[in-house]
Amino acid sequence: MLKKPALHTVISPKLLDIYDISNSIVVIIDVFRATSTIATALYNGASRVIPVAEVNTCIQIGQKVGGITAGERDGKVIEGLEHGNSPAEYPRNIIEGKTLVLTTTNGTRLLHMALKSGASEIVTGSFPNLSAVCDHLVKSNKNVILGCSAWKDRVNIEDTLFAGAVINEIESAFTIHCDSSLMASELYRQQKNNMNSFIRKTTHWHRLAAYGLEKDLEYCVSPDLANVLPIYRNGDLVVE
Amino acid sequence: MLKKPALHTVISPKLLDIYDISNSIVVIIDVFRATSTIATALYNGASRVIPVAEVNTCIQIGQKVGGITAGERDGKVIEGLEHGNSPAEYPRNIIEGKTLVLTTTNGTRLLHMALKSGASEIVTGSFPNLSAVCDHLVKSNKNVILGCSAWKDRVNIEDTLFAGAVINEIESAFTIHCDSSLMASELYRQQKNNMNSFIRKTTHWHRLAAYGLEKDLEYCVSPDLANVLPIYRNGDLVVE
Repeated sequence: MLKKPALHTVISPKLLDIYDISNSIVVIIDVFRATSTIATALYNGASRVIPVAEVNTCIQIGQKVGGITAGERDGKVIEGLEHGNSPAEYPRNIIEGKTLVLTTTNGTRLLHMALKSGASEIVTGSFPNLSAVCDHLVKSNKNVILGCSAWKDRVNIEDTLFAGAVINEIESAFTIHCDSSLMASELYRQQKNNMNSFIRKTTHWHRLAAYGLEKDLEYCVSPDLANVLPIYRNGDLVVE
Repeated sequence: MLKKPALHTVISPKLLDIYDISNSIVVIIDVFRATSTIATALYNGASRVIPVAEVNTCIQIGQKVGGITAGERDGKVIEGLEHGNSPAEYPRNIIEGKTLVLTTTNGTRLLHMALKSGASEIVTGSFPNLSAVCDHLVKSNKNVILGCSAWKDRVNIEDTLFAGAVINEIESAFTIHCDSSLMASELYRQQKNNMNSFIRKTTHWHRLAAYGLEKDLEYCVSPDLANVLPIYRNGDLVVE
């Protein structure tokens, strides 16, 4: 019998360097809301999404490539940018054929860490593209790191739940000796029929719901509403 | 209404420095098996336990203070030491009135990190002394960090479960805005009537059960069998 590839869950970016991620596919997970928005924009026909950490970089790249610039602080569009972080802002009639330049802090930071550590491939994952991620991971037959972007390195439930959802789907195809993965999958199994209620207990819910984003957050834990696979290629996230 | 103190769970030592732990009580958790053995030795009358990281230090201190030296690698007593890491090795007729010098890697490292970061008090926690820890934390009315020793910085289930057990008992006395704590308490609630079976899924179980330590591990998830509070004072863990 062939040896199955290994799967690990990294529940905070600070724990990434414990693992050897060369020869691994790294799934960047930032459920509220960066990777949910990335999947949605690409699903609705964006030609690419460029994830950036800094607002100034976002403005510069936006001007250079003629893209839509996006980013929020405290629930409002950042001054100098055009759109916010909500997936609901990117229907087909707005985004089709366009480049989206998206400022995200936690997700972009983890993506750059994974690049620097030599990941062989980087994709982004969120509930709206759960099945696309799972299908790709099984088909690729390579080692997998499920990378939670967390919140300023603090563990968050929603990213961990997504890792659990992936594991729940694909565990039979992998060797999993990883308590973070076991914890994530147990938590997901326990809460999967109760997600809209459970996420109301998270720290992130309390941070964002104050800005009236309840519908956004419920969308971000709904599976397969934007089922494409964003892959990172030379600075861009694209669907191949 | 007075503001309740804050409680956070740190599920890997690598995440400790995210938190300001000055003015906090830090609970060092190393369920398999260091903190379970510490509680047991003190419960059975040890005058103190000196936790050390290195084998040589263990031997030197053991000679200096006339203590019992203890430590294991791969399920065997380390050459030059007298006892192993099992709580079962420390009944009253062996340990009463004695000093135990115990080598532990993950737990001792976290304890020293907490000291260096200015924790106002350090205690050790494990299922055998669950209630003593909970009673102390509620009575102290100070901020709390539940510090999981983990395994070479990798998250482990058993330490997280103990954090969850503590939270389950005392959450009404604390302000808890911490997804790690929410995750730990949900996991504990889900598994609390199923512990002996659930721990068989953990990576640590697979590591230790190979050495025939099943009874040890089951003891280490049994509440209140050695219900004392080990407090760190100038290098020693003692019961006051």
